[in-house]
Parts: sequence; C-alpha cells; structure tokens
Amino acid sequence: MSDESWFSSKLREIDRDECLNLLRTETVGRIAFTDDSGPDLVPVNYAMDGDDIVITTTGYGALARAGTNGRVAFEVDQLDHFTASGWSVVVRGRAARQSPLAPPDRRPHPWADGSRTYVLRICPELVSGRRLIPA
Amino acid sequence: MSDESWFSSKLREIDRDECLNLLRTETVGRIAFTDDSGPDLVPVNYAMDGDDIVITTTGYGALARAGTNGRVAFEVDQLDHFTASGWSVVVRGRAARQSPLAPPDRRPHPWADGSRTYVLRICPELVSGRRLIPA
Repeated sequence: MSDESWFSSKLREIDRDECLNLLRTETVGRIAFTDDSGPDLVPVNYAMDGDDIVITTTGYGALARAGTNGRVAFEVDQLDHFTASGWSVVVRGRAARQSPLAPPDRRPHPWADGSRTYVLRICPELVSGRRLIPA
Repeated sequence: MSDESWFSSKLREIDRDECLNLLRTETVGRIAFTDDSGPDLVPVNYAMDGDDIVITTTGYGALARAGTNGRVAFEVDQLDHFTASGWSVVVRGRAARQSPLAPPDRRPHPWADGSRTYVLRICPELVSGRRLIPA
C-alpha cells in the first residue's frame, strides 16, 4: 500500500486495464523528468496510441532535452474538492522520440498555439492508479 | 520561453509573488521525486507555511524514503477544459523532514483517513508559473 498520497483507508487500487481506460478519458496530464537540477514537472496535452502516451513538444525545450531516452513519470487525475474524492493514475516508463508524427487521430491537440513537431512517446512499464471513495 | 508545456503564443509568465499567492488558493498538488527507477509522481494535499510547502505523509512510504533530503518538483494547476485555458505553478527545491509537526493552521488536511505524521517541507528555490489566456 502506498500511503504517501491523498489516499488511505478509503483507498481502492485501480487495475492496469482501468487505469489505461481512465487515461483515454482525459487530455491533460503532468510529466516528470529529471535534469541536472533534479526532477522537473510540466503539464502537457497528450493522446493515447494503444497503451502508449503521446506528447508533442518542441525539439529545443527542457522536456525534449531531458526527457528523450530518459525515464519519466506521467500523472493524470480527476479531483472533486467538494467531496474530497477522486482518482489518479501514474505511469512510469521510458520516453523516446517518435518520428514521424503519429496519425492525426492519435496525436495530442495542444491547447496553445505554436509548433510542436517533436513527438515523445511513453511506453508504460509501471501503471498504478488509486481511487478515493467519498466517506 | 518554455515551449514544452501547453502554453505557447498566448502564454503569460506568472511572477514569483503571484505564483506563491496562487499556491495559497489550492490544497492539492503533485510532487515529483526520484528513486532508483527514475522520477515518480504522487498527488498530495499540502499547506503553505510562509513560502514553504508543507506535506504530511507516512515515514515508511516511497515519498518519505526518496523525497527526504532529495530534490523535488511540486506542481499545482487549475485547468478549464471548456476554454482550454488555465494556469500552472511549478516549484523546484529540496525537501527536508520537519520535526515537530507544524501548527494546525499551517498543516495540510489530507482528504483520506490514516496517520500522516511525517512532515516534508519544500523550500522553494525555483518558482515558475504560466497562464494560458483563452483565445
């Protein structure tokens, strides 16, 4: 049991299949990667391609520089502040550059303008999820 | 300019003071830390004590083990999926164990039951924030 999160006695573990299904319901997550100053963390739009997570970024940013061929963690959650409940899914794995771009239906749709032609693909190794049931 | 996130042409950087004020408006964030398998990421309840971020966890969990005296990144965001806009704040710094507990008004209130007497305090070194203005 992982006690470090906001889940404890009302914790339900979410199995891998349901975790991957939950990932398919959202479009924004957060990716953690490591550079010389330790872990860093950025919110990103994403798309699922099979069980892989696909992110587009720029080739000269911190994420491409530190994330490519590096280990990453990726998190998505849905929180209900009113009932203090929700779920979170965390994927750990390696990010690799994908070339060429994924087909449009398997490509993220960034909320912001700007060119994002550098594609990172995360192949999930560890997939874990937790649901906090309202009391 | 950081292009790796969901912000680009409509990006506004948020200054440090406003970042810290935004952190005071929320109670759930995500902390990234590094263990032997690379970065990991968990959602946590938090409280602010001055400019420090205070998190309570258990002493035998992954966060306490890998986060204590380690470098961490901490992220909070507010997203509006309808307008594809929002803000995010990322803090990078070192996490240290705090003993004894912070006073109740400067202590996080975990959503879940369970004992969380291990207090991690993050002293912000790098504070950055971005706001995506709706088009």
